Amino acid sequence: MNGGKLLLFGATGDLAQRMLLPALYWLAADGLLPRDLSIVSTAREDLDDAAFRERTAAALQRSAPSAPFDEDMVGKFLARLRYVAVDAADPAAFTALAQAVGSTAGGLAIFLSTAPALFETTIAGLAAAGLADDNVRIGLEKPLGYDLVSSRAINDAVAGVFSEDRTFRIDHYLGKETVQNLLALRFGNALFEPLWKASGIDHIQITVSETVGLEGRVSFYDGVGAIRDMVQNHMLQLLALVAMEPPRSFDAASIRDEKVKVLRSLRRIDRATASTHSVIGQYAAGQVAGAGVPGYLEELGRSSRTETFVALKAHIDNWRWKGVPFYMRTGKRLPSRQSEILIQFASVPHSIFDMRGAILRPNRLIIRLQPDENVRLILMAKEPGLDRDGVRLREVPLDISMPDAFADRRRRVAYERLLLDLIEGDQTLFVRRDEVEAQWEWIDAIRDGWSANQMQPRPYAAGTWGPSAAIGLAERDGVTWHD
Amino acid sequence: MNGGKLLLFGATGDLAQRMLLPALYWLAADGLLPRDLSIVSTAREDLDDAAFRERTAAALQRSAPSAPFDEDMVGKFLARLRYVAVDAADPAAFTALAQAVGSTAGGLAIFLSTAPALFETTIAGLAAAGLADDNVRIGLEKPLGYDLVSSRAINDAVAGVFSEDRTFRIDHYLGKETVQNLLALRFGNALFEPLWKASGIDHIQITVSETVGLEGRVSFYDGVGAIRDMVQNHMLQLLALVAMEPPRSFDAASIRDEKVKVLRSLRRIDRATASTHSVIGQYAAGQVAGAGVPGYLEELGRSSRTETFVALKAHIDNWRWKGVPFYMRTGKRLPSRQSEILIQFASVPHSIFDMRGAILRPNRLIIRLQPDENVRLILMAKEPGLDRDGVRLREVPLDISMPDAFADRRRRVAYERLLLDLIEGDQTLFVRRDEVEAQWEWIDAIRDGWSANQMQPRPYAAGTWGPSAAIGLAERDGVTWHD
Repeated sequence: MNGGKLLLFGATGDLAQRMLLPALYWLAADGLLPRDLSIVSTAREDLDDAAFRERTAAALQRSAPSAPFDEDMVGKFLARLRYVAVDAADPAAFTALAQAVGSTAGGLAIFLSTAPALFETTIAGLAAAGLADDNVRIGLEKPLGYDLVSSRAINDAVAGVFSEDRTFRIDHYLGKETVQNLLALRFGNALFEPLWKASGIDHIQITVSETVGLEGRVSFYDGVGAIRDMVQNHMLQLLALVAMEPPRSFDAASIRDEKVKVLRSLRRIDRATASTHSVIGQYAAGQVAGAGVPGYLEELGRSSRTETFVALKAHIDNWRWKGVPFYMRTGKRLPSRQSEILIQFASVPHSIFDMRGAILRPNRLIIRLQPDENVRLILMAKEPGLDRDGVRLREVPLDISMPDAFADRRRRVAYERLLLDLIEGDQTLFVRRDEVEAQWEWIDAIRDGWSANQMQPRPYAAGTWGPSAAIGLAERDGVTWHD
Repeated sequence: MNGGKLLLFGATGDLAQRMLLPALYWLAADGLLPRDLSIVSTAREDLDDAAFRERTAAALQRSAPSAPFDEDMVGKFLARLRYVAVDAADPAAFTALAQAVGSTAGGLAIFLSTAPALFETTIAGLAAAGLADDNVRIGLEKPLGYDLVSSRAINDAVAGVFSEDRTFRIDHYLGKETVQNLLALRFGNALFEPLWKASGIDHIQITVSETVGLEGRVSFYDGVGAIRDMVQNHMLQLLALVAMEPPRSFDAASIRDEKVKVLRSLRRIDRATASTHSVIGQYAAGQVAGAGVPGYLEELGRSSRTETFVALKAHIDNWRWKGVPFYMRTGKRLPSRQSEILIQFASVPHSIFDMRGAILRPNRLIIRLQPDENVRLILMAKEPGLDRDGVRLREVPLDISMPDAFADRRRRVAYERLLLDLIEGDQTLFVRRDEVEAQWEWIDAIRDGWSANQMQPRPYAAGTWGPSAAIGLAERDGVTWHD
């Protein structure tokens, strides 16, 4: 493919410098970008092309200090970059920007990596300057609102200018190789499908744990909290991919039609059930990786009821998932950083083996997104030996996703995939409006339940797996969280 | 466990020297034999204890030239051995043998590793000499007859002296670790069971191929042929284990009850279907491993209609296996030595992936018994990458049975397991009379079909996978043999 343009808002910001520009570089280095794609970068800061390129060169090095950067390749990439300072509040700035961008006839992909507060004025500015015609696609980073109402307002503002098929809502979890591999495993193998339902699955766990605390995100995080930062988007998207019916085809409409059906089938956790089906926590001082760390309130410097931890027990009310609990938890200052989905299959209905007290553990599929990406299937197999004390079975972990043959490939970051899809116009891995709104509806009901029940976050020591009530949420059902 | 005795007939023969005595040594070296177990060995040859021990010491070294034999351990093992010359035709010899064996009160396990022609006189001799009381168990090596009638005669002769619960019919395939692992996988995991039937399995292949020709087995093999040498016992036992219903428990009665049900459910291949459901061959001169080898008739030195190759397409007429073909083939002078079971699962009902001509291959489970023992599950997973030309899936082989943790253990031979089970009286891995007879009934009908249809073995060049008609037997159904 030739031609096309990319317009990047927020180009001096953290995400752009740490992720987006390096991702674009690697795509260019691998010959995957349209040959003549030019990249116009904007931010409020007053820089010229040379200064921006210099800053980007430094960002590349920082992003991968040990990567084999090819001087020539870096030079060619930087030559694609131009920089235009834009103050989103100033309509005139968009006129200048439009001049710098020029014709959109070959396709223009816009990526808004800016504060959501700027979305509406930016979109209005783009429209006024003629940068929103049918050749233009827009990519939006989260957060898209803080509840259903505010999300609708943003979506309405976007929709007034960009039709849904030109609107690309990013959830970077969907760009992860392993998330796509989950779909490949489910729908590329006959092995899993007969089990993938209530009769074959005991329960599912989705964990997104962080070791970091509030850090630099004070202004954003406080008042938002774990459920809106992590559950509303990433974790519900993972849940939808795990639980969806087989789509007709691996395309944007089919996949998203199935996901939204799952999201709409989530049983409400509301005023009646919030206290039995959710647990919220806030970290106190403690130890992470052997070092003492302060509590949330100390970091914040004021009092707050924001939850830094949430655990939920969810159900999907449809035929496939009747009675199967989906346990979700996420939090800051937990003992390790891991994002994973655990599918615990049903136990065998009856053990034929006399194992002298040893347990026939149920099969499990573990889809790990962080810190490493990996898919692992855990089976029982016979331990070699003469079985004088009854047959001995043991768990055998089988790593599906990363055979040695691919071990030396550089792992692509999620944004490479998503930027390329945005540039090429493939919406499969982007979130549709109806999905976002179904997610907010479910989350809003939970938050309403918390407030109606005056639920306060329970303190937990930094470096532990959240309040003990979260352990109880699963243990009451005989389920142990996979730590 | 203490005490007990083992009486080994045919102790100077090939099987005893190459397999049985070394297996006993390793059991002793690992402390698994009853501490005071004494081993009385017999054969026709006139030897004293010292000469037999010397011969056994040499056999141990030959059996495992690079094994770390412990002189002290070998000495202790040889000290267990006594030798008594016995001519089975001479009743007086058994009286002397009984004196040498002494009391059977602590349990006596007898292993007949002799020509089947000697079974009846040997058993009569044992009975007359008082070596067949309730404390005595007898282990019998194949072949147990050459058809149903002769098999019944042997079984009747044995049954006149030893009750069925003291009769241990050996099929050494059942002693293989991987065959037992097949049961562990089927019944220790919930993953496979929903697929393990007609709706989930496309077909099953069982292959036992040899590269050797007639070699030293002229007197036994000619007139017997591949179907009776391999299919009647080993391959039908494998088929029964793959196809059986879940047993109540992993014990002798439950497992064998289920196996015999399968064997009795085998659809007859008879005069009407022999020519469409079976192919027989006989090797002609050819190349094996790059060296020219003579044909069967040249090796034999006379004309013969014995088949050295047989391929069958079998069906099991029960609910579980309705419509699933079981392809079996075995032969001599084939391109490689391998014994394996291949379970080919059904294809996914519909591919959601646009793979640009690439194929979504069905999942497969490969249980390999020879030359190495291994269980491999083959799945499809996403190939890492940005999927610009549609999603790319590839096959990922997962090795279940031999994780690295066990790689340094010495592989036990099947006879270690079986001898120990015989000594301890566990019949689970031995073949019951009703199984043997069901196997013969099915085989006899096929052989009757061959003779009624005057089917002659088709020649195939040594070093090829049998006559081309055998390829056709599977290809007609769209199935390719797994070579």
